[in-house]
Amino acid sequence: MDILHYQQEFLNYLQSKKWIKDPKNLYEPIDYILHLGGKRMRPILTLMAADIFSSNYKKALPAALAVEVFHNFTLVHDDIMDDAPLRRGKATVHEKWDISTGILSGDAMLILAYQYFENYEPIIFQKLAKLFSKTALEVCDGQQLDVDFETRKDVTIDEYINMIRLKTSVLVAAALKMGAIVAETNELDANLIYDFGLNLGLAFQLQDDYLDTFGDAATFGKQIGGDIIENKKTYLYLKALEVANEEDKQKLLFFYQQKLEDNSVKIAEVTRIFELNDMPVLIKDKIENYTEKAFNTLSKMSISQENKENLKNFGLWLMNRTV
Amino acid sequence: MDILHYQQEFLNYLQSKKWIKDPKNLYEPIDYILHLGGKRMRPILTLMAADIFSSNYKKALPAALAVEVFHNFTLVHDDIMDDAPLRRGKATVHEKWDISTGILSGDAMLILAYQYFENYEPIIFQKLAKLFSKTALEVCDGQQLDVDFETRKDVTIDEYINMIRLKTSVLVAAALKMGAIVAETNELDANLIYDFGLNLGLAFQLQDDYLDTFGDAATFGKQIGGDIIENKKTYLYLKALEVANEEDKQKLLFFYQQKLEDNSVKIAEVTRIFELNDMPVLIKDKIENYTEKAFNTLSKMSISQENKENLKNFGLWLMNRTV
Repeated sequence: MDILHYQQEFLNYLQSKKWIKDPKNLYEPIDYILHLGGKRMRPILTLMAADIFSSNYKKALPAALAVEVFHNFTLVHDDIMDDAPLRRGKATVHEKWDISTGILSGDAMLILAYQYFENYEPIIFQKLAKLFSKTALEVCDGQQLDVDFETRKDVTIDEYINMIRLKTSVLVAAALKMGAIVAETNELDANLIYDFGLNLGLAFQLQDDYLDTFGDAATFGKQIGGDIIENKKTYLYLKALEVANEEDKQKLLFFYQQKLEDNSVKIAEVTRIFELNDMPVLIKDKIENYTEKAFNTLSKMSISQENKENLKNFGLWLMNRTV
Repeated sequence: MDILHYQQEFLNYLQSKKWIKDPKNLYEPIDYILHLGGKRMRPILTLMAADIFSSNYKKALPAALAVEVFHNFTLVHDDIMDDAPLRRGKATVHEKWDISTGILSGDAMLILAYQYFENYEPIIFQKLAKLFSKTALEVCDGQQLDVDFETRKDVTIDEYINMIRLKTSVLVAAALKMGAIVAETNELDANLIYDFGLNLGLAFQLQDDYLDTFGDAATFGKQIGGDIIENKKTYLYLKALEVANEEDKQKLLFFYQQKLEDNSVKIAEVTRIFELNDMPVLIKDKIENYTEKAFNTLSKMSISQENKENLKNFGLWLMNRTV
């Protein structure tokens, strides 16, 4: 089991599809966003799970594609909602074309994702589509909560964890379970690999929060301090508010009401308050906690020791992405 | 078979569902748009087709709801793209909330539509979902063509008919076929009722074009002359360009480049040119043509004479909506 091998297999499959057809203004943006790059983490997970539970993981390629196309649909629509000009260093779809194009091409991608399940026989088709609909709706819920949190002042850490669970983790979990469904594994193992993905997804998102402030600009790929500039109520911010003394708390509340042109002082000050209050340690504890939870699930699965190691290695690969 | 009976049955089913849940900002707009009213023509068609082909048309209620929720999803997203402030005399979703809410609530509706198919066993589920995906993608294609036509000067009548087929007719056709699928009728009859709907849908949309200019403001429900104000390249406009003399043609081209504050002269002049060039007669011929085509399909179906009459009466009811 080699992660880069699955990645290459998936990219070959993606390339084999002809994305552009008429009306071009609808399908060119789809081709564009799907070829912007990225780690292809979600489809890799689908292929990996299928490989663990069956002898023919390539059968999972259409399901893997559905997951990736859905993920990119969320990026296109989220970028409109966030008014984001750039995605992976390139213009976002609504910037390169316009908002209407972003909306409609996104809609078409959501429908296309369902169509890839048509490659499977009715019972598997229904299982995949059911899990997919449930997951997609949860991702919408998560996105809505994320939007709601922007204007709320009383967001709790539990609410935040629930939001990232919905917005990020359920899709990671579903990507794995879809591989298990295609491989026709038993319900118990399919649910265990889902739980593995759910906790790994939480760890992954919390690490993203950590790297957004404390990461290395050269390897992170996004602007360091982006969450601070945007006044994002991440784990770092919410936990700091909980543990900081009154003075630091007031400073944080003050900075998170500002929308500034020059953010250098704000980023430096907020980062300092996070550090003074031990946020790097506290969030790493939390990340480790969810990673451990994920790895513990593995022990309950009826798969070979080698496959357990492989899944664990994938988790480590994912979590050590800065190393 | 009583159209109003199906309508009431559908409305009862719609009411029985609890639409609002958390996060409220996501689901309240869905509740809002679904209760704005309308004839509920599409779900009625699903129930009617199920009634013709089986003894328990209520089994088709979830499929009927999927069609209606999908239709309303297209309204929410199209209203954003068209920058429309009003829908059925009330504020559109993105006006009442905002564009982000319109996008995300719309996305959730598209997913919800798929979820209603989960009420059916795997083989019917897959048939419904496949037809639905194909149709939904065609509706996206149609919407994109409609947007593209706004800035194109060389739209042909055939292209226009193809656009309204995709944007409007395929959903009418699919609504009927879904009823046939739930009723587990044979493939031939399912396809014939699809064709019936496709042609009836074309007739319906062309009649909408006619009424938009020549209808009675009291019964039409939309502003008379709306298409003219918007410079919409409808059948009336495209056909007039084809048959008018050079002077009328130039006048039309001139008026359709204007965006005016006061449209009274423009509407009066364009309407006069349409009348002088026999547009009311020509479009009525076309409408009759498609209606006849739809009715001819009925004769090939293996259903009772009474049911054929019923479908025909529904067509007449739909087409005589101004009487």
